[in-house]
Amino acid sequence: MTGIKTTGEKKLMFFSGRAHPELAEEVAHELGIGVVPTKAFDFANGEIYVRYQESARGADCFLIQSHTAPINKWIMEQLIMIDALKRASARSITVIVPFYGYARQDKKHRGREPISARLVADLMKTAGADRIVTVDLHTDQIVGFFDGPVDHLFALPILADYVGAKVDRDKLTVVSPDAGRVRVADRWCDRLGAPLAIVHKRRDKDVANQVTVHEVVGNVEGRVCVLVDDMIDTGGTICAAADALFAHGAEDVIVTATHGVLSGPAADRLKNSKVSEFVFTNTLPTPNELELDKITVLSIAPTIANAVREIFEDGSVTSLFEEQSGPQD
Amino acid sequence: MTGIKTTGEKKLMFFSGRAHPELAEEVAHELGIGVVPTKAFDFANGEIYVRYQESARGADCFLIQSHTAPINKWIMEQLIMIDALKRASARSITVIVPFYGYARQDKKHRGREPISARLVADLMKTAGADRIVTVDLHTDQIVGFFDGPVDHLFALPILADYVGAKVDRDKLTVVSPDAGRVRVADRWCDRLGAPLAIVHKRRDKDVANQVTVHEVVGNVEGRVCVLVDDMIDTGGTICAAADALFAHGAEDVIVTATHGVLSGPAADRLKNSKVSEFVFTNTLPTPNELELDKITVLSIAPTIANAVREIFEDGSVTSLFEEQSGPQD
Amino acid sequence: MTGIKTTGEKKLMFFSGRAHPELAEEVAHELGIGVVPTKAFDFANGEIYVRYQESARGADCFLIQSHTAPINKWIMEQLIMIDALKRASARSITVIVPFYGYARQDKKHRGREPISARLVADLMKTAGADRIVTVDLHTDQIVGFFDGPVDHLFALPILADYVGAKVDRDKLTVVSPDAGRVRVADRWCDRLGAPLAIVHKRRDKDVANQVTVHEVVGNVEGRVCVLVDDMIDTGGTICAAADALFAHGAEDVIVTATHGVLSGPAADRLKNSKVSEFVFTNTLPTPNELELDKITVLSIAPTIANAVREIFEDGSVTSLFEEQSGPQD
Amino acid sequence: MTGIKTTGEKKLMFFSGRAHPELAEEVAHELGIGVVPTKAFDFANGEIYVRYQESARGADCFLIQSHTAPINKWIMEQLIMIDALKRASARSITVIVPFYGYARQDKKHRGREPISARLVADLMKTAGADRIVTVDLHTDQIVGFFDGPVDHLFALPILADYVGAKVDRDKLTVVSPDAGRVRVADRWCDRLGAPLAIVHKRRDKDVANQVTVHEVVGNVEGRVCVLVDDMIDTGGTICAAADALFAHGAEDVIVTATHGVLSGPAADRLKNSKVSEFVFTNTLPTPNELELDKITVLSIAPTIANAVREIFEDGSVTSLFEEQSGPQD
Amino acid sequence: MTGIKTTGEKKLMFFSGRAHPELAEEVAHELGIGVVPTKAFDFANGEIYVRYQESARGADCFLIQSHTAPINKWIMEQLIMIDALKRASARSITVIVPFYGYARQDKKHRGREPISARLVADLMKTAGADRIVTVDLHTDQIVGFFDGPVDHLFALPILADYVGAKVDRDKLTVVSPDAGRVRVADRWCDRLGAPLAIVHKRRDKDVANQVTVHEVVGNVEGRVCVLVDDMIDTGGTICAAADALFAHGAEDVIVTATHGVLSGPAADRLKNSKVSEFVFTNTLPTPNELELDKITVLSIAPTIANAVREIFEDGSVTSLFEEQSGPQD
Amino acid sequence: MTGIKTTGEKKLMFFSGRAHPELAEEVAHELGIGVVPTKAFDFANGEIYVRYQESARGADCFLIQSHTAPINKWIMEQLIMIDALKRASARSITVIVPFYGYARQDKKHRGREPISARLVADLMKTAGADRIVTVDLHTDQIVGFFDGPVDHLFALPILADYVGAKVDRDKLTVVSPDAGRVRVADRWCDRLGAPLAIVHKRRDKDVANQVTVHEVVGNVEGRVCVLVDDMIDTGGTICAAADALFAHGAEDVIVTATHGVLSGPAADRLKNSKVSEFVFTNTLPTPNELELDKITVLSIAPTIANAVREIFEDGSVTSLFEEQSGPQD
Repeated sequence: MTGIKTTGEKKLMFFSGRAHPELAEEVAHELGIGVVPTKAFDFANGEIYVRYQESARGADCFLIQSHTAPINKWIMEQLIMIDALKRASARSITVIVPFYGYARQDKKHRGREPISARLVADLMKTAGADRIVTVDLHTDQIVGFFDGPVDHLFALPILADYVGAKVDRDKLTVVSPDAGRVRVADRWCDRLGAPLAIVHKRRDKDVANQVTVHEVVGNVEGRVCVLVDDMIDTGGTICAAADALFAHGAEDVIVTATHGVLSGPAADRLKNSKVSEFVFTNTLPTPNELELDKITVLSIAPTIANAVREIFEDGSVTSLFEEQSGPQD
Repeated sequence: MTGIKTTGEKKLMFFSGRAHPELAEEVAHELGIGVVPTKAFDFANGEIYVRYQESARGADCFLIQSHTAPINKWIMEQLIMIDALKRASARSITVIVPFYGYARQDKKHRGREPISARLVADLMKTAGADRIVTVDLHTDQIVGFFDGPVDHLFALPILADYVGAKVDRDKLTVVSPDAGRVRVADRWCDRLGAPLAIVHKRRDKDVANQVTVHEVVGNVEGRVCVLVDDMIDTGGTICAAADALFAHGAEDVIVTATHGVLSGPAADRLKNSKVSEFVFTNTLPTPNELELDKITVLSIAPTIANAVREIFEDGSVTSLFEEQSGPQD
Repeated sequence: MTGIKTTGEKKLMFFSGRAHPELAEEVAHELGIGVVPTKAFDFANGEIYVRYQESARGADCFLIQSHTAPINKWIMEQLIMIDALKRASARSITVIVPFYGYARQDKKHRGREPISARLVADLMKTAGADRIVTVDLHTDQIVGFFDGPVDHLFALPILADYVGAKVDRDKLTVVSPDAGRVRVADRWCDRLGAPLAIVHKRRDKDVANQVTVHEVVGNVEGRVCVLVDDMIDTGGTICAAADALFAHGAEDVIVTATHGVLSGPAADRLKNSKVSEFVFTNTLPTPNELELDKITVLSIAPTIANAVREIFEDGSVTSLFEEQSGPQD
Repeated sequence: MTGIKTTGEKKLMFFSGRAHPELAEEVAHELGIGVVPTKAFDFANGEIYVRYQESARGADCFLIQSHTAPINKWIMEQLIMIDALKRASARSITVIVPFYGYARQDKKHRGREPISARLVADLMKTAGADRIVTVDLHTDQIVGFFDGPVDHLFALPILADYVGAKVDRDKLTVVSPDAGRVRVADRWCDRLGAPLAIVHKRRDKDVANQVTVHEVVGNVEGRVCVLVDDMIDTGGTICAAADALFAHGAEDVIVTATHGVLSGPAADRLKNSKVSEFVFTNTLPTPNELELDKITVLSIAPTIANAVREIFEDGSVTSLFEEQSGPQD
Repeated sequence: MTGIKTTGEKKLMFFSGRAHPELAEEVAHELGIGVVPTKAFDFANGEIYVRYQESARGADCFLIQSHTAPINKWIMEQLIMIDALKRASARSITVIVPFYGYARQDKKHRGREPISARLVADLMKTAGADRIVTVDLHTDQIVGFFDGPVDHLFALPILADYVGAKVDRDKLTVVSPDAGRVRVADRWCDRLGAPLAIVHKRRDKDVANQVTVHEVVGNVEGRVCVLVDDMIDTGGTICAAADALFAHGAEDVIVTATHGVLSGPAADRLKNSKVSEFVFTNTLPTPNELELDKITVLSIAPTIANAVREIFEDGSVTSLFEEQSGPQD
Repeated sequence: MTGIKTTGEKKLMFFSGRAHPELAEEVAHELGIGVVPTKAFDFANGEIYVRYQESARGADCFLIQSHTAPINKWIMEQLIMIDALKRASARSITVIVPFYGYARQDKKHRGREPISARLVADLMKTAGADRIVTVDLHTDQIVGFFDGPVDHLFALPILADYVGAKVDRDKLTVVSPDAGRVRVADRWCDRLGAPLAIVHKRRDKDVANQVTVHEVVGNVEGRVCVLVDDMIDTGGTICAAADALFAHGAEDVIVTATHGVLSGPAADRLKNSKVSEFVFTNTLPTPNELELDKITVLSIAPTIANAVREIFEDGSVTSLFEEQSGPQD
């Protein structure tokens, strides 16, 4: 044969946008490498400039950005960074989105709405993303919005093990804050061997003006309730659910969620709530005013780092999470 | 200007696959037109042959096919028919799928599974579909699987009005057969002014071998319960839910579902059930052995015909369904 | 450089649909590996479920499925399996189609027909196929229907060597059953050093009702004729051609074809024919009722296994078939 | 509704490249319109410049270019002109290719070849073509190379009617110059009620150095033979076939072909041949040195103009060619 | 024909994002219609919600959004609004971008940078845009970044006519603030019959620390200089250029630019400058602190409205701008 | 794991079209390999035939073709060769275009023009190109026309070092032949420490018939001027600029350009010019009649070979060109 033949090599490089640098550093530390030095700033009119300080040619590039506020800016920055990697001859581009923005707009709730979660997946693809790694999507169907592999990681083991180690198991009841989210609560029950309760919101037909009643299904009297959700945004729903549990005789309520969005009135609501502890992971940065004693933040970095390593080494991400039958490969 | 200028015209043409010709005829009848004559047969080795008997050039073509058994054959036939329309210079191709196959595989329940519902949407697009019209998808997110407009129709008005006109409203309770499907049941409650109950399946921790307990949330004693679901396939879940309602003192149980898939053991289960009436629409053909007195089939044809007419005339499909805030345009 | 650098590895994994598991096992055996364990079954309503039992992450995946009856089901299964591989992070997906369905619908024979052979190629691409391996396509142009590499293998060496070793070479005449298929017969002549004859079908102008006359071009009197075709479907054409040869004084007739589709009336026709032997390869499973003495099935497995090995090792598939100038790389 | 509503209009505009302006003028004349004035020239280094003199905004644009020599230049010019139409807001772009270049490279005759006919279709699509109109493709499968509608026109009626009106029908025999092209000859037989003969080329096994023998199948003695082919390029094959017919006693030989490529030694061969008349259409310009008495050129312009009119008015192109069952819509 | 035939209609609908509602209202007013009522707001975490209050089915939709600060938010809003139009069955989607964000990142100034201007074009396409209308792009090549028609409008007639009517033509000199922008200044010279001067920045080799010298080419002594640029961002360059003109004896300096980005230190610089008048168009909203006497804002609304009307009616946008040979159709 | 695991290998193969074989040989020689033997010729009607003599399966293929006259032929040949590589299972296809054709049509200078430079990029992509390597594009924005990585090389170091070593540095002035090309001249100034001058063409308002005046900005009296441009096509502009420099007292003028297109009247103009030396690189073959003493051709082969090596080995192409801040990775 005419030509040159050599042994193939592969390189892992780890990049980060500016949305949540602490998490990026943690993941890189877990991997035993550094984040690739990157020049990134805003021009006076808000346009973002990005330039990598090292060549990404031929590398398997992992680019982390969490969609925190200002969310549109960070999504655009991620798209721009993907474009720069594509044009810099990256061999593959894996986009890590610990919190996937617009996940709640995953369908048309009414006519003439966008399906922004699909749009975000398509924008990533167009910019040049080959694969997405994300954590606890609002609905599993979003995996199907991306035309390519999606590694969907779960925070459940981290959150459940923390709670399980802390509370009296005999008194523990897992509570779904909404009838539509029972499936995740079921997995908690399996893992912790605890019974399930459900908070069901419904309008009270007998009272005017559509007062919402929080009905509690299952026994919570004298129980330590752990309310499990995927994300806490303004905190309204979850605090009302906690109130309902206390009203039905719960001894204590702990709230856990993968994503602490915590926007708008969340700070006040969490401070004023009777809930004894809120447990989140650090898929999103915690606002300063919420660095309270009763807020615990567990690190998702080891989970992400393991996934990155397995993806790079073509191992099975599923094997990392043997206990649970989640959608891994 | 050099050239020829004329007034634009537009033509509606209505085509049907061989899966459910009765429904196609009904829709065409509602539209006041005929189904376009089409030659379609299987070769000895099972390959499908299709040829249209009229020119589709420049027409807005609507092609109906319901994904009934043998489901893979009818999906392939629909793809082949779309290809033939595309190559025959159709101006636009709207694919009508009264029952959308593989809708339940809308996510990876476990690792290394396909997302077949997304695949079906992509296959339609590749063959040449511009738009999809469908009825009561298993989950609303599937709308986001198609890269283009999807008109998502609801059978709720037809089903709910039939049930509402028949039973004693004061005794009526709407029941969701599963905690995850409460949202649709809520809409029934709103339309019929009836209270809600939920059947929640859970494993009994105190009994070996994972016996499932059907817990009933809400009062059903002495009530006429209408169990609402999107589809009845083998009938196992819904019949067990009905049994639970009777066990909790329900006076009567009516089951409604948009899609009567009714495969495998469904025939026996429905015959043997204490449920007084099963109400479906004809999005799928009813198997002969299920043409029973206690099975009522309402026609979805007027709903589809209205949508076709509005799409052709660029009207608002939403306006057809004013009472409900569904995802229409 | 910031990051991790390691030596690249590559993995070959071999998957099979349920259409023709015997052939898959044979190919895997030739490769010295096992077929990847896969869970695959039909739901009651005919929808197919697939899940791989091993991680395919980073592997060069080869997926075999022969398009036998029920053909639409097996095509859909293959598409679903490709989708699952794509979403499971396969590095490359090579689709092996020993018999390519819908190959005869490779053009519009009349207006308003589909071009299903192109559609099948596009569906494979959409699902995620990177490359196709196939055997003796009905027309070579189908290779151009796929937007990517196609390895087009030939059964000619296997079939011709079998026949050549068996018959008296001095009495052998190669016969094309149709004027349009002379090119393949020419290759047989070259390989076996035999003369050519052609059966040409034409309508008899002098007789009413369009009786077809089988004209024989070339001398077949007292010759052992080997009729060569790409596929035998219902067997009508080939048996009539054989009759014509006998009528023109042929001493014996052997029929060979790569693909034994053998549908509908084929079983009876083959049994009743005066042809002394039918020789096929196992690109398709042989129907039970055709396991006759006069039917010989040669294995295509070594040919496919060699191609898989060369593709995986980036060798030249052409070099496998040095004697013939076929379209290989 | 907020907005403006008006009656839709549509405009036909007809454009031409510089390859064969006479044909463009003829087609425009048949349509009763002018060719859109276009500035087109070559820069000193051979780059092509194009600019339309009229706005094409919103028009259904038809762009004719025949792939004559220098063929690569005219293909590139057509692609550039399509790009200009796309960027000038044409409503639709129909590309008319009376002779489709690279049609003979429709498959890999050997390994590591391109499939240029597919490439040309893809290039047209990429530049912006919505539809192709072409005449007598080398193989029908090329229609499937384009991802969109192709109107495949036939010159057979024009050619056959001319020949049929000229010769003594009782003496007429239709001859296929090659076993692989019998299908078209069959259609001539049907239309003219004439018998068929075939010229079959084969190597003479008994003579050294692979001398090719032209075997004649069917009776040609004393007959007026019309040899029918899709194109005459260098003329070698067809003149040798004619010689064989004369050698077998043919009284006269007429050659017809849709496309008179007539390159290289064609001029000398045609001049020196005993063939009494060569009949082509003007899908390609006739080289000056071939404006001979025995060369007849029939116009394809009315056929193309009819197709353009029917496409613009959404009529059936098939209806134009009722007598023949060709692939029209 | 089977089916329904009616006269085609077309509808124009005009939509606006929230970035610059005043301009949207002005354009709508020029068109004699209203902006389609749209519900749009930010969720607490910054995600954007959009829903149209009227059906857009079958309409030719024009969606205006100017990329002002916070620029990433408004780009994302525009993408989301395009997605909603696509899924609401718009017939065509024309995206109006009076100021095109990221236009200055139209190339890699250094390695490992993105080409954000191309990315923005691709994102628009992916979301569903069919055409872009924009004003005075930073470089004309950006038109080629979009795969489809771009109507590139010019503010030159508005700006030049305003300046031409105001100053003493005999004293007027047009000045390009940069050697690279001479082409636009040339067009001003042609329109106003004025001479040209150029400000050329270069480093002074004789002075340390790379002091930049503004060299003035052409005579400006005693002249009224109009400095013409496409955009003024922080104002540094243009104010320095003006100073150089005054230093070379200019009697007065007027600055004109299509886009008044005016970010960061621009307010102070403009206030403190000796320039007598700054003339912009309203492609971007003017910051409050810059509503000064010496700032004149001319409306681009009539220009955009004319383009919309011509696009909708398939007229020639070029004819609107007869005097100048700009890239219109 | 079921399957086979081996160490990955990679192969570099180098292919060339027929446009400029000398350059291909030089690059291959620099790389220490041979050009892959390829059969390529024109059929009588101008269609190009290509077949590689070695298997390209799994190789990283580099395909060089310079767009010299007849330019459309060589572009088509390159597209056909890319198609052949894609279908021959190349692992990656890098297209080397030392001179990129149609680069000057990178925008619509007037309405209804194509953007041919974007079209060429899209055609390359469609044929199967993964990456482009090119030298000194007419404008940098063209990099953004390709949807993938582009390695944009510069001839400046070769040209400037040659000139710098030859002339008296103290007398050297760098001259831009056009106000729009000042940026490149600035880089020459930086590298050679020389002052800048600009030739500005403008119409003389005081003389009829639009006589063009070449104004010289900066001091050239008694200087050795080096006029730097990207390409010399017909030579008109550059020779007029040189004349202007001599008219302003230049002692000597040297002209350098990366690309010596040299078409049409270029030969005569260069011969008759007072310019003492023309310096080009061999991105294009030099016409025979221009092999003059005063024409110097420097080889671009080492630059291209280095880029190929770095691309194959995933090194940084930027590091090759440390002195200049060009767009490399």
